[in-house]
Amino acid sequence: MRIKIEFAYDGKDFFGYQSLPSKRTIQDELEKALSLVLNEEIHIYASGRTDAGVSAMCQVAHFDTKSDIVPTNIAFAVNKILPKDIRAISSKKVSDKFNARFSAKEKTYKYKFYYSEVQNPYLDKFAYFAGKNLDIEKMKNASIEFLGKHDFSSFSTFDKDIKNHVREIKSISINKVGEIYEFAITGNSFLWNMVRIIFGTILEIGQGKKGISEIKTIFEKKSRKFAGKLVPAEYLVLTNVKY
Amino acid sequence: MRIKIEFAYDGKDFFGYQSLPSKRTIQDELEKALSLVLNEEIHIYASGRTDAGVSAMCQVAHFDTKSDIVPTNIAFAVNKILPKDIRAISSKKVSDKFNARFSAKEKTYKYKFYYSEVQNPYLDKFAYFAGKNLDIEKMKNASIEFLGKHDFSSFSTFDKDIKNHVREIKSISINKVGEIYEFAITGNSFLWNMVRIIFGTILEIGQGKKGISEIKTIFEKKSRKFAGKLVPAEYLVLTNVKY
Repeated sequence: MRIKIEFAYDGKDFFGYQSLPSKRTIQDELEKALSLVLNEEIHIYASGRTDAGVSAMCQVAHFDTKSDIVPTNIAFAVNKILPKDIRAISSKKVSDKFNARFSAKEKTYKYKFYYSEVQNPYLDKFAYFAGKNLDIEKMKNASIEFLGKHDFSSFSTFDKDIKNHVREIKSISINKVGEIYEFAITGNSFLWNMVRIIFGTILEIGQGKKGISEIKTIFEKKSRKFAGKLVPAEYLVLTNVKY
Repeated sequence: MRIKIEFAYDGKDFFGYQSLPSKRTIQDELEKALSLVLNEEIHIYASGRTDAGVSAMCQVAHFDTKSDIVPTNIAFAVNKILPKDIRAISSKKVSDKFNARFSAKEKTYKYKFYYSEVQNPYLDKFAYFAGKNLDIEKMKNASIEFLGKHDFSSFSTFDKDIKNHVREIKSISINKVGEIYEFAITGNSFLWNMVRIIFGTILEIGQGKKGISEIKTIFEKKSRKFAGKLVPAEYLVLTNVKY
């Protein structure tokens, strides 16, 4: 039977989601724990990779098992084995046609940031220090330029395995949430580093280093070197995958 | 001249604010850095202590110096020496009558928490996991019982040096802020562990372990043992001191 599992992790002490030889990864930890619980070798397929340092409030994967365990009990059982920085949220039986990656309709990521005259060690715990001053209204206006279908070659790190760079951004927003700001972006799927490069570009617009009108040109260039900097991974979180 | 200095810290790697022999404390780190910058032995007096693990988004202290440095430059200079987990926000000359502790009119603390079917390692980075289910409305109603002047003996850890246990709570609230909840409490001053015991009691009401009507009785008992548990220090932050 095919199982859909939802899980969360603090990405800090992992070399990313995807299995890597002799590195600590989320996929390896979860597969190891599931294999123990189900007493067979389990391979999981997630909605997508997250890079080293990136966290997930809710990531989704599927796997197949011959076990006759009650599906909803898997999450509970695996949490007894998993290290503290990964937790299964839920598990349930799904159709054999369900694929965590290809069935995903939308994914939402958030990037948390703040600006302030002086860097604040308390806020640094959960938000990126983006400098002394930011024009948030300008950043909101810049965000709108990314909505819809575009070729995101300029806003991603080159990946030789990917041929089609067209992706669709369904919603994008910047909101003050308590002491910090949250940049939220929802799309059908994302290219490598795409969220962090889009936000890095919007940030440079907020810092006055780039103008909103440049976004169109950067899209047209189809080259990474014209977009903004890649912002640090640790303040990025995958918050939701919709099916 | 007397200087008022505002500063922030991540309390994680400190044994609290107050100087302690052979322990890393915020007071010691700040006094050491100020003494170097001003080339004389500096003693600072903060608005109040914070316990081991507690952070500050904005703490205030005063000190006297014979230096002829431009007062507003002190924060800038001291930040070049301070470790990354403390940052001076501002420094300015104040009247010799200003006392960071006794001139303080109000202090605000926040305690961040969440509840969820399963503990979430991402949210654990910045909010306390308060169990599977909480009655937030009940917690809001319970909070109101703490407003105003009370003898807080039951809601503090005994301190032989403190004779008067009457304190005034000026405002108290619980709000959803993004993915988590924030408990905020403002008072003229606070007894030892008072915020964490008040919140621990409100939390037990939200968990159904205690009733709102018990708060009155707990106040009357004037004994710590009837109130709720002391919640962990790491999710508490001093956000503001008003003069």
